[in-house]
Amino acid sequence: MGMVGGGPGAFIGEVHRKAARLDGGIELVAGAFDINPRKSKQMGRQLLLDSKRIYRNYKEMIERELKLPEGKRIDFVSITTPNNWHFPIAGDFLNAGFHVMCEKPMTFNVTEARHLQKLVKKSRKVFALMHNYTGYPMVKLARDMVRSGELGKIRKIIVQYPQGWLATPLERTGSMQARWRTDPKQSGGAGCMGDIGTHAENLSEYVTGLKITHLCADLTTFVSGRRLDDDGNCLLRFNNGARGILHASQISIGEENNLAIWIYGEEKSLEWHQEHPNYLYVKQKNGPVEVWRRGNDYIGAKSLAAARATRLPFGHPEAFFEAFANIYCNFADTVRARLTKTKPDSLALDFPNVDDGLRGMLFIDTVLASTKSKQKWTRFKK
Amino acid sequence: MGMVGGGPGAFIGEVHRKAARLDGGIELVAGAFDINPRKSKQMGRQLLLDSKRIYRNYKEMIERELKLPEGKRIDFVSITTPNNWHFPIAGDFLNAGFHVMCEKPMTFNVTEARHLQKLVKKSRKVFALMHNYTGYPMVKLARDMVRSGELGKIRKIIVQYPQGWLATPLERTGSMQARWRTDPKQSGGAGCMGDIGTHAENLSEYVTGLKITHLCADLTTFVSGRRLDDDGNCLLRFNNGARGILHASQISIGEENNLAIWIYGEEKSLEWHQEHPNYLYVKQKNGPVEVWRRGNDYIGAKSLAAARATRLPFGHPEAFFEAFANIYCNFADTVRARLTKTKPDSLALDFPNVDDGLRGMLFIDTVLASTKSKQKWTRFKK
Amino acid sequence: MGMVGGGPGAFIGEVHRKAARLDGGIELVAGAFDINPRKSKQMGRQLLLDSKRIYRNYKEMIERELKLPEGKRIDFVSITTPNNWHFPIAGDFLNAGFHVMCEKPMTFNVTEARHLQKLVKKSRKVFALMHNYTGYPMVKLARDMVRSGELGKIRKIIVQYPQGWLATPLERTGSMQARWRTDPKQSGGAGCMGDIGTHAENLSEYVTGLKITHLCADLTTFVSGRRLDDDGNCLLRFNNGARGILHASQISIGEENNLAIWIYGEEKSLEWHQEHPNYLYVKQKNGPVEVWRRGNDYIGAKSLAAARATRLPFGHPEAFFEAFANIYCNFADTVRARLTKTKPDSLALDFPNVDDGLRGMLFIDTVLASTKSKQKWTRFKK
Amino acid sequence: MGMVGGGPGAFIGEVHRKAARLDGGIELVAGAFDINPRKSKQMGRQLLLDSKRIYRNYKEMIERELKLPEGKRIDFVSITTPNNWHFPIAGDFLNAGFHVMCEKPMTFNVTEARHLQKLVKKSRKVFALMHNYTGYPMVKLARDMVRSGELGKIRKIIVQYPQGWLATPLERTGSMQARWRTDPKQSGGAGCMGDIGTHAENLSEYVTGLKITHLCADLTTFVSGRRLDDDGNCLLRFNNGARGILHASQISIGEENNLAIWIYGEEKSLEWHQEHPNYLYVKQKNGPVEVWRRGNDYIGAKSLAAARATRLPFGHPEAFFEAFANIYCNFADTVRARLTKTKPDSLALDFPNVDDGLRGMLFIDTVLASTKSKQKWTRFKK
Repeated sequence: MGMVGGGPGAFIGEVHRKAARLDGGIELVAGAFDINPRKSKQMGRQLLLDSKRIYRNYKEMIERELKLPEGKRIDFVSITTPNNWHFPIAGDFLNAGFHVMCEKPMTFNVTEARHLQKLVKKSRKVFALMHNYTGYPMVKLARDMVRSGELGKIRKIIVQYPQGWLATPLERTGSMQARWRTDPKQSGGAGCMGDIGTHAENLSEYVTGLKITHLCADLTTFVSGRRLDDDGNCLLRFNNGARGILHASQISIGEENNLAIWIYGEEKSLEWHQEHPNYLYVKQKNGPVEVWRRGNDYIGAKSLAAARATRLPFGHPEAFFEAFANIYCNFADTVRARLTKTKPDSLALDFPNVDDGLRGMLFIDTVLASTKSKQKWTRFKK
Repeated sequence: MGMVGGGPGAFIGEVHRKAARLDGGIELVAGAFDINPRKSKQMGRQLLLDSKRIYRNYKEMIERELKLPEGKRIDFVSITTPNNWHFPIAGDFLNAGFHVMCEKPMTFNVTEARHLQKLVKKSRKVFALMHNYTGYPMVKLARDMVRSGELGKIRKIIVQYPQGWLATPLERTGSMQARWRTDPKQSGGAGCMGDIGTHAENLSEYVTGLKITHLCADLTTFVSGRRLDDDGNCLLRFNNGARGILHASQISIGEENNLAIWIYGEEKSLEWHQEHPNYLYVKQKNGPVEVWRRGNDYIGAKSLAAARATRLPFGHPEAFFEAFANIYCNFADTVRARLTKTKPDSLALDFPNVDDGLRGMLFIDTVLASTKSKQKWTRFKK
Repeated sequence: MGMVGGGPGAFIGEVHRKAARLDGGIELVAGAFDINPRKSKQMGRQLLLDSKRIYRNYKEMIERELKLPEGKRIDFVSITTPNNWHFPIAGDFLNAGFHVMCEKPMTFNVTEARHLQKLVKKSRKVFALMHNYTGYPMVKLARDMVRSGELGKIRKIIVQYPQGWLATPLERTGSMQARWRTDPKQSGGAGCMGDIGTHAENLSEYVTGLKITHLCADLTTFVSGRRLDDDGNCLLRFNNGARGILHASQISIGEENNLAIWIYGEEKSLEWHQEHPNYLYVKQKNGPVEVWRRGNDYIGAKSLAAARATRLPFGHPEAFFEAFANIYCNFADTVRARLTKTKPDSLALDFPNVDDGLRGMLFIDTVLASTKSKQKWTRFKK
Repeated sequence: MGMVGGGPGAFIGEVHRKAARLDGGIELVAGAFDINPRKSKQMGRQLLLDSKRIYRNYKEMIERELKLPEGKRIDFVSITTPNNWHFPIAGDFLNAGFHVMCEKPMTFNVTEARHLQKLVKKSRKVFALMHNYTGYPMVKLARDMVRSGELGKIRKIIVQYPQGWLATPLERTGSMQARWRTDPKQSGGAGCMGDIGTHAENLSEYVTGLKITHLCADLTTFVSGRRLDDDGNCLLRFNNGARGILHASQISIGEENNLAIWIYGEEKSLEWHQEHPNYLYVKQKNGPVEVWRRGNDYIGAKSLAAARATRLPFGHPEAFFEAFANIYCNFADTVRARLTKTKPDSLALDFPNVDDGLRGMLFIDTVLASTKSKQKWTRFKK
């Protein structure tokens, strides 16, 4: 594994490294960690990498890794840079024959996303998008319950992602995290909706297997001087007729990372909260609410994917890193199958891919279009 | 106190009776409990009323009560009939000189509501609308916190009222509750939005002191054959620039009576859940979440209204009946002040009135208009 | 209904009045509300009683009520005085032919309790003890689940009743509630264990149908100068071999009225919390935790007693007053059956009686003996 | 790092490996993973170890590692065998000059524990005991709050560790985990109390800084045929006069890994639950309950140790592995300081050591003695 991004002060790069490392099957051996070559070196040394494989930039990394014999060079690269860099870097690595793990949102805009989709197909390489929240075992259980049909036809979906950390102009206080996320040149046209709204969109489509077809968005920038939205509320319509609400926020004081979803079917309903990820609430018509708890045999009996995504017995809580690592595991198993020319376990194919990434970009695009529109409904482009 | 409605099989009439009775200051002495005079008699006898004061219909009740000497006749009437009867009955009682407690939604449509508003003003009688959820002490605490300014400017409001009891066509199984609520002739143009959406609207305006100015609604009838909406999602805009979401549902399986509100200000945030009414969550920027618990001295120090609305010490939970009774207490204290020609305690004036009722009818009207509209925003009429 | 105790400043007397009033079947018509006759008058007037039936003391009340014709005099008396007065007052009323509702702990000591037990039997009157917490519907559901055998043999019971209101020497600041509860002359030999420990004991025996046979107690007085225990921890052994823990406290800062119970059987387990009384948690071996919620059809299907004890639909929370009122309802239905010489509904007999009261006094006695003993186990007297 | 134990089918060995691996500072390079050399090989190959460093037994491992040059050989060993092997293995490694990380309970009995205590001192090596639950940041925050004095004098401590996984005779169904834990030859004299009661004891002493001086224990074996206790309840007395309760269970159906602690002081109280480890509840006399949430600045301002033990921002939940890894981090930093002959960060010394291990063994010893005794209190040996 190589990495682009994740230099000193970055948040998500280190999360990638820890998650990739957790299970012992992936080793970070090369990187271009920062746009500043000195900082890249610093980070690489800190990570105890072979100094020859700490690169000044990602192009050098591609060039030099390609010169290594096949078993020695990196098998894949993880891209954890700000959004505007995702597409060029992913494209170059794919073209050079490397598999790619990429942070979300996938690209800077829909055009790039469509382009990348084609590139991935052409390259025949494995491309994963880090929608880490679908790595939680109880999210997989939820999906498998919906798939099994026991909820009946889905009628209503509420998905939320409120945070409060940008309730003040943090970007003006030196926070690197806040700065690039509120900068349209690095983040793209959407702020809050790109950064976390896309997670909510992805979660809702992953669990239900449905697609949003129309939405009506109301985006707001509450913090004066900020250049991107820091809050947004959307009405949703899905391809099976289901209705929904999606809201996300970075100015909701007291909310930390409160991604949650409620799915109402004709027969049963589900509820899941990211901050309490080991529990799935199952509700029925005339019976008690059921609290399904990660790690039990009855979970595995309902969802092989949930069992596969579990490392610890019940009551020994798992959390964010493990969900993240689950995306890595499935991606890596798929890469391994390619390398060994075997067929991967069908459960290993369960990771977000370039099509999910395009959905996310279309979501951003549609949200932005809707916000400007006076019409109630804006349709997703094909 | 007299009562119109609340006959055998009715739900809310008996709630009114118990709530009115709880504190010992109000006595039910007369009633026309059912459109069927025999059933009215039956209920009156069951309530051990003087048989002379069990009436065949509300007109007889007015006529005969007026013939009683002033100290003997009822001071006020409680109207707990289906919605279509609220206006004619309230009007007649007001015109006859009685004070009125009325169930919500206040009238059948906006025209009636405006008419009633004028009637109340002309009559100089006390008119209360049973938006019982604003009777909870912790709702009053929330309002007083917002009023005090400690939340700063309100930015975002989320209010929800999901239920699941109408997820199936219950109205076709003989449930009286389900039947009239899904009948446009008795309920008016809105189903779910009229029955419970109005509570959500009222709660959000009560706590924040703001007014919704525009909304964008998506109403749905999920149960086939049903004639009114059983689900609705709205985007909201408030008169101070705040944004919001209001959603209500009767088809959300597993949800019981899950009215809840989240209010996000520039400085602090609040969260309250009707099903756990003794707790108010207060969130701040860089400090722990605070769980304010009913009945403590520190609650009273912040909100006299909350203290006044409390009967039991902390840890001895209060619930639905007490909130309901609190509306009665304030209304009755105000009526008593009129009867004794004294000035009521200013806290006694804290009950929903005809203006709140008109807001509710405008909300229904705007929701229905928006649902039909292709425009994103529909403005509230003045 | 008449009342002894519950004068100005009293807490539980007013709770009795509201609870008795709630359902409309009981009317308070006479009382001796305070040991100070002037205060008794004051309270009686405040309650709008006929001044002739506001008595200076309970002996006058008995004497004068007996002179009223049978249909006019009170049917029963509620005793809400400090503990030392329970026995003499209850005895005199029983001897005079009145039914009795009495606050807990039932008497001042075991000798009185045994005496009262005999008196009740001899009198053939209805005697109820206000262990209000067994009035909660979900407690009745728990009992019926245990009775049905679905938990299997009970192995372990944990019952707790922590409060924090006496963490400081409140009795020296003028709090009447704190004063008498910490005064051995009014409360008896136990403080915390008598006041609330007995509720925990009663709850555990009510729900499981088991009897504590031995205990090992560690009582403490943490607040210096206080004359009775304000905290206690006990190991328990039950008559079926089950083991348990009972702890109660008045010095546990932050705990309000946190009575809760956990019951572990060979097949299933239960958990209930008084501060969230509408929920019963049912746990099984290899399946989700079930949250049973008051007011649903599936509750009534499992427990007629729970259904009978329910006034509001699901999601409309019920709480402390209703549980209290449920004890009154069953007691009053039983009294009514006596008055009309009919057989009461067997469910109406579900209220705490003189035998439960004796159990409570034996519990106090055993706890006090154990605290003084160096032996591990102290056996309950027969 | 080398490992003894943690072969195929073992639970805790793999937890050690993942936790040690998470942060990138520790590398597993050698091991004797199973008492069966073939299984040891199998595990080592699975872990991609150099086959020369996969040993047939721990004695071979010591011998051969010592032959490697200093920079090449392992710096420390992790011992994750059943309890009866802890002492001989730890002793031999210490004597051979290796640092040691050991699973709990530390030894088979008190005699071994005292012996090991001397050995550690003599060896001048770093010895850590894996009481992983004290690795949670919010546990460290709790300890630092108690230390700061803001709780006032501690009055009462309740600590519980209920599980339900051994409610049936699982040891007879082939579960390796269940088998050795219920075998006195491998576990020692205590079952439940040794396996998890010691965690509860350790947690209570870690957070409060107090020592248990006396206890009164009631141990039970509920599952017929089982040879060790599977449930236990204890009354506790602490060296400052505080009272307490400790209970642990393996037969409490529905409980997963429900370690929790309540600490009541004269000024404030704390509450923490292992299954929801990111929250610490702080309770005060007349103010709201505070929910302190991991990862916030206000946490770090109160507890440097909590901040140091944190990897992810607020709302991104951390859990079991991270707490485990925190013990490794501090241990490894201390080992590193020894290797580099520098002074470790004083916060790095915050890991359970041989003295804590002796406390655990004394706890087991006292619990077993108390269970057999007819006296109420059994004193801890010095």
